[in-house]
Amino acid sequence: MEPTTFVLFGATGDLAKRKIYPALYNLYIDRKLPQSFSLFGLGRRELSDESFQANVEQSIRTFSRREANNSSLIKDFVSLFRYSVLHIDRKEDYRKLLQLIEQREEELNIPPNRLFYLSVGPEFFETITASIKESGLGSANGWKRLVIEKPFGHDLKSARDLNQKLSQAFADHEIYRIDHYLGKPLIQKLEILQQNPVLNALWTNRYIANVQITANETVGVEERAGYYDHVGAVRDMFQNHMLQLLMMLTSHLPINSDSEMVRFKKKKVMEALEPLHKEEVSASIIRGQYKAGTVQGKPVIGYISEPGIASTSMNDTFIAAKLQINDFFWRGVPFYIRTGKRMKEKSTRIVIEFKEQLKMSSQESTERKSPNLLVFEISPNEGITLQLNTRDPLHKGEFKPLQMNFHESKGDVPEAYENLIYDALQGDPTFFAHWDEVELSWKWVQPILEAFEENLVPLHRYEAGTYGPAESDALLAKDGYHWWFDDKPEQHIKTEEGEQYAYQGNH
Amino acid sequence: MEPTTFVLFGATGDLAKRKIYPALYNLYIDRKLPQSFSLFGLGRRELSDESFQANVEQSIRTFSRREANNSSLIKDFVSLFRYSVLHIDRKEDYRKLLQLIEQREEELNIPPNRLFYLSVGPEFFETITASIKESGLGSANGWKRLVIEKPFGHDLKSARDLNQKLSQAFADHEIYRIDHYLGKPLIQKLEILQQNPVLNALWTNRYIANVQITANETVGVEERAGYYDHVGAVRDMFQNHMLQLLMMLTSHLPINSDSEMVRFKKKKVMEALEPLHKEEVSASIIRGQYKAGTVQGKPVIGYISEPGIASTSMNDTFIAAKLQINDFFWRGVPFYIRTGKRMKEKSTRIVIEFKEQLKMSSQESTERKSPNLLVFEISPNEGITLQLNTRDPLHKGEFKPLQMNFHESKGDVPEAYENLIYDALQGDPTFFAHWDEVELSWKWVQPILEAFEENLVPLHRYEAGTYGPAESDALLAKDGYHWWFDDKPEQHIKTEEGEQYAYQGNH
Repeated sequence: MEPTTFVLFGATGDLAKRKIYPALYNLYIDRKLPQSFSLFGLGRRELSDESFQANVEQSIRTFSRREANNSSLIKDFVSLFRYSVLHIDRKEDYRKLLQLIEQREEELNIPPNRLFYLSVGPEFFETITASIKESGLGSANGWKRLVIEKPFGHDLKSARDLNQKLSQAFADHEIYRIDHYLGKPLIQKLEILQQNPVLNALWTNRYIANVQITANETVGVEERAGYYDHVGAVRDMFQNHMLQLLMMLTSHLPINSDSEMVRFKKKKVMEALEPLHKEEVSASIIRGQYKAGTVQGKPVIGYISEPGIASTSMNDTFIAAKLQINDFFWRGVPFYIRTGKRMKEKSTRIVIEFKEQLKMSSQESTERKSPNLLVFEISPNEGITLQLNTRDPLHKGEFKPLQMNFHESKGDVPEAYENLIYDALQGDPTFFAHWDEVELSWKWVQPILEAFEENLVPLHRYEAGTYGPAESDALLAKDGYHWWFDDKPEQHIKTEEGEQYAYQGNH
Repeated sequence: MEPTTFVLFGATGDLAKRKIYPALYNLYIDRKLPQSFSLFGLGRRELSDESFQANVEQSIRTFSRREANNSSLIKDFVSLFRYSVLHIDRKEDYRKLLQLIEQREEELNIPPNRLFYLSVGPEFFETITASIKESGLGSANGWKRLVIEKPFGHDLKSARDLNQKLSQAFADHEIYRIDHYLGKPLIQKLEILQQNPVLNALWTNRYIANVQITANETVGVEERAGYYDHVGAVRDMFQNHMLQLLMMLTSHLPINSDSEMVRFKKKKVMEALEPLHKEEVSASIIRGQYKAGTVQGKPVIGYISEPGIASTSMNDTFIAAKLQINDFFWRGVPFYIRTGKRMKEKSTRIVIEFKEQLKMSSQESTERKSPNLLVFEISPNEGITLQLNTRDPLHKGEFKPLQMNFHESKGDVPEAYENLIYDALQGDPTFFAHWDEVELSWKWVQPILEAFEENLVPLHRYEAGTYGPAESDALLAKDGYHWWFDDKPEQHIKTEEGEQYAYQGNH
């Protein structure tokens, strides 16, 4: 790895403390930082290098996945850290920073390879990148990279504006857009696994009946009311994380694809996604907002009662969508995607439901059976399960699924931020959100945003602590399917009576 | 289930004690015996009903998979048992037996449905079945079934002779030939699982590179020297169990196949099996015999030093074979089958090795990687593992297999004999060796028997406690493969040096 200076905007912020410092520390322990490495933390606050280093140490001790009990190791690590006051709109601060960086580069014999990590609100992106360019920080005789966090725009137009502005200072290949879902080990495996000939053989509409992607949270808006009420589930989760999962799952990458191929194939998926027209949105998109209810035994208030939320808010805290990819592999396979706050349980998972064999007799067709499923559990636990429908040889005619499980070994699994920062330091853009994808995602959700705005789609209020509005279930039931693994009381009861509910109408 | 009388020849024998009584007891507990059930034990020894019942109780207490601590349950069970002295060649004994059975049938209101279980040497089959017919035992106004244990003949001719003799007294559909491998739960699952559309999609030469079937034992000839030396591994294991496993694995049963279809499809596999000519046997069959060695830490003597074995014996205690099924599905897929005594470890397993993806670059082609494997562990533990070759996203370019496991829950798994006796009582011949299969198996192995007899195939003496002669490894190496999961010291050593051995020569 090339010697690098890591320039961190927002060094005293929450993301830096919770994610970036612990990630860098774990990379350091795993010897995955460049041999010559220097970090400059930037913030408005006055802070000595020593205090900054102490803060970093504290954040590692609090948030690192590995116990940080080797003091001399931590000391060595934080000794790489420097702090500089920077007011985002003060040009002289950038010039001063340049001097400090150059001085340190000389000290450590680091060529001017600089990674600028913007852990700040998107409203500052333009000023910062322009100043990086203007000050000479980015025009050095090495490489420069820009790492930014979402949101990448608020809709199609603002995303294009933002990108246009960033592109004044950074070339497209220099921009690394973090979507932390792409850093999760199991998601990265997913992309690789579909190249495996065994799974690849099954990865088509010939064998797959439908795909379900769920990202449910139990939390409500938390401290983010003001922000969230202008964003909603579509912008906060769906346009980025959920569509990225969809692309990762369906891209049919050739073996040994490089990052260019990944980018190309993901773009192809987005281009093949059947577009929605504003007037049709209500047929395939369910909008929800949580009411008061009980989550994990605790009563919680409804969305419009949350502090900072207007009682008239029509913001979406839940969305369920049916998508179709109109290409050779996926034509005819519905993709159901949902995400919501204040759901019954926290769970991110992908379920691939395989087609059943043809029924041979009328007796057979009334028989209850479970289809084959391939399940990727992404959180809270990581694992893959293949559920194969089989008969129990001892009870002829009785179906009994057989489950084959893979569980990611706990503890030693690197976190998403470690993977992504490592990749950015290496200059590997594979697991970042490329501009094509961002633009096409916004383009695809734009009619949804407009239909919501114009109230063309009903807002279904669902009880907190459930799986969202009943209309979400109906979306699948129309096609003869149901959401897998929802832990509903009625499902329990009926299951005991012969799994009536679970397989009801499931063709 | 219909009321039945179970007539057991060889009631004081070892198989009855170890397998049949415990199996019947467990079926009794599971309420899988006919409501009206009567058992007659037959033997040469004089024995009162009470003593017989006490012996049965003792065998259950010793050998049942379930603890037999409910005395009243056992008492109820053994109260169904009666004993009668029977000398196999004494006609009056059969007539006396008929009287006793008829009397008991009247007592219990059981129609004359009689299952004759011959737990005796095959040399008695003819006399017994002829006497059953002659005495009127089998010409009753109900159904009759004959359950027999292998060996079903000693070669093609004797098998045909035996079958011809049995057919004088029993119709083909009345004969249930026990191959206890077919009673193992995982083997029964195997047959059903291949109908599953997900596995079915992969079950062809398009995806499968080769199949390996292993049944290794650590024991030597034990007490059976006299018998075994006239039989050898081909007759004792290969002609029956191993070829049955092959048929079960490859038969491509349609969904909802009945027993007639199973029989038909298994026959088709045997008919498609590329025949061997005596002169070519040595090219695809490895014959081995164990020398002295160390098995699981204990020194053991060689085969020809075993008591009862002549020092000049050329008998095979090991066989490895390469077979080809010349049909649409399997053309070009080698099936490697081996079985041996005094091997390093006891293990019965089937390994399906999938084809690898095409190599994209020369760099790639030298990369070590593990192919996808589907492994059925049949004993000592039951389980299925799908090993998927994937890259570790954290170490780009490094291959790291991912294993998905299914383990049969221990303890509550019925034993092979339970399954088979239950099926015979129900009149379901699915998991028995049908005459077609027996005949075609003997036909297929006949050239091997003759080539061995005429010494056209070298006898390789292998050290006890190994995986057989090196020629067995060479048989696969010629095709670019190796036996999977052999626990060889050199494999260990080399594996640490980069898995050179494990993947050596593996195309």
